[in-house]
Amino acid sequence: MQARIAEKHLSGVISMNPASWYYLTGFTGEAGALLLSARGSFLVTDGRFTAQAKEETSGLRVVKQDGSLMATVGSLLRSRSQNRIGFDASQLTVAQFRAVRKAAGPRVRWVRADGEVENGRQRKDPAEMAQMRKAALLAGDILTAAVKLLKLGVREIEVAAEIEYQMRRQGASGPAFETIVAFGARSAHPHARPTERRLRKNELVVLDLGVILGHYCSDITRTVFMGRAPARIRRWYRAVQEAQAAAVAAARAGTSSGDVDAAARKVLAGYRLDHYFVHSTGHGLGLEVHEDPRVARGQKHLLVAGNVITIEPGVYVPGVGGIRIEDDVAVHAERTEVLTRIPRDLIEI
Amino acid sequence: MQARIAEKHLSGVISMNPASWYYLTGFTGEAGALLLSARGSFLVTDGRFTAQAKEETSGLRVVKQDGSLMATVGSLLRSRSQNRIGFDASQLTVAQFRAVRKAAGPRVRWVRADGEVENGRQRKDPAEMAQMRKAALLAGDILTAAVKLLKLGVREIEVAAEIEYQMRRQGASGPAFETIVAFGARSAHPHARPTERRLRKNELVVLDLGVILGHYCSDITRTVFMGRAPARIRRWYRAVQEAQAAAVAAARAGTSSGDVDAAARKVLAGYRLDHYFVHSTGHGLGLEVHEDPRVARGQKHLLVAGNVITIEPGVYVPGVGGIRIEDDVAVHAERTEVLTRIPRDLIEI
Repeated sequence: MQARIAEKHLSGVISMNPASWYYLTGFTGEAGALLLSARGSFLVTDGRFTAQAKEETSGLRVVKQDGSLMATVGSLLRSRSQNRIGFDASQLTVAQFRAVRKAAGPRVRWVRADGEVENGRQRKDPAEMAQMRKAALLAGDILTAAVKLLKLGVREIEVAAEIEYQMRRQGASGPAFETIVAFGARSAHPHARPTERRLRKNELVVLDLGVILGHYCSDITRTVFMGRAPARIRRWYRAVQEAQAAAVAAARAGTSSGDVDAAARKVLAGYRLDHYFVHSTGHGLGLEVHEDPRVARGQKHLLVAGNVITIEPGVYVPGVGGIRIEDDVAVHAERTEVLTRIPRDLIEI
Repeated sequence: MQARIAEKHLSGVISMNPASWYYLTGFTGEAGALLLSARGSFLVTDGRFTAQAKEETSGLRVVKQDGSLMATVGSLLRSRSQNRIGFDASQLTVAQFRAVRKAAGPRVRWVRADGEVENGRQRKDPAEMAQMRKAALLAGDILTAAVKLLKLGVREIEVAAEIEYQMRRQGASGPAFETIVAFGARSAHPHARPTERRLRKNELVVLDLGVILGHYCSDITRTVFMGRAPARIRRWYRAVQEAQAAAVAAARAGTSSGDVDAAARKVLAGYRLDHYFVHSTGHGLGLEVHEDPRVARGQKHLLVAGNVITIEPGVYVPGVGGIRIEDDVAVHAERTEVLTRIPRDLIEI
């Protein structure tokens, strides 16, 4: 990080991303600002987190926020006469940026350094990769157990509650995102929230869940049919399964993430189902459940060894239901590793 | 809302706050932008949420995001020649603001309208108040049950898992925030995350939890001592309890929220414990667990009937532990109603 700061002729870089604070310093608090600088780094946070920050970090100064967060950061920059500060325009609100700029005074120049701090997080080292493997395996176990809860009359919200309970019982610090349990026509909404809806015969069920285990996230989706699936559903399922396999096969070092997305879309187009695929193929995964690289139309990012992404194409037919299959995939120099290992075939109950 | 737009001579206002989307339109999705305008409102969202948005809303146009969200919003503004658009500088990132401004073109003037959309949410109507009462009562029930889980050797994370499971079993859509279960010295961190730490004799325990019930949040904290509390702990507890009661008594229509904060601080200063009170006294509560009005030092907001706030002073002694008592309080014209009704005395186990 210090090398990148020097390379860009910056005096320092500000990070407002809690996952990056943890990555770089070990701090697990939820509010604050981190300034990385060759002349000494500091972490500004409020009274709720200062004692915790001192316990969790070393080699940086913990500063207690005095008044507003950004005013405190600005005053520090002014007093240290730092004059070229990198910032990420997607991490600062307009109000925060105006406040810090005002408090820092006119001698500080603000330079866009979008993604600069986060870039390092895209290449997982072996220890991180080992942790992500564990998180992915746990998600698979939880999903396998959850399928057994699918009985006629059960409510979406009951299944979701049981899933998140089991995550914690098995060592997760919590779900990586709000668990999706969607029955019947509700499964046509890719991000449906669990409701009181009860499970009926001949319905699709989408289960999408992930855990945070040792700070790292996983994310997996499987689709179930309550009964024997009719030919139409089987055909949709086959299309999604082939699209997913094609995208996994395409996810190799040196390929652009846009081409991974295109591989899934091409298969669905062959089935004339591409207009039912209403989201992107995947996203980076790590300390955050959504991080770079994006795996979407036109993305130029070239995959490199150490990237971990989700691959999760789907087909969503309004009024009928949805099908999605999602795995977590690690890119290595010579091979691609699917971290989530449970079967991908249609589950009929 | 339309009246406020007209009053400020705006053509429209942009909201990037999901709780406000729900409040104004019924949309429960997580990504998008809402433009409120006298000449017709629209909601821009991506493919994951468009079908859902059409089902959940009426009287506004749902526009599917084409490329980036803010570029889509900007193009719509340009094509409709809206020329004075209000925005909240704390809701837009610098990157989003630059993108929307560019796409909208030079004929659109951007006017700060911070909190304009959210202001209405601060005064809860009777139906909202009834829902918040239910959410507060449920949180109290959950906390009462959680106290029974406190046995020597239990882990923080087990108790937290059980708490969140019971929330959902009892109808909550989920926790309003990550449940805090902090044992011993960990309770000196106001926002401690549950760990594998086991409960030992003669330790303080802070339980801080809230539910989302019918979209509305609650937030309650109680403190437990495992054993018979020594004189020092009793004195700290008494100080916090008196500070909390003083702040509740001060929370009346016409009083500034800064004065509510001061009432708690003054009691703690009388005990020479004010330097151990490292956060603000409370916050507004509603569709979001933290919303305006803030209840902190120097806040000028005058409480009005319909405000719901938390009152949660605490004392945190590094290396020893923390004590916090928190209730949810509704301000009415002639009286103050404490929504969370379980006892406030020190619980000794």
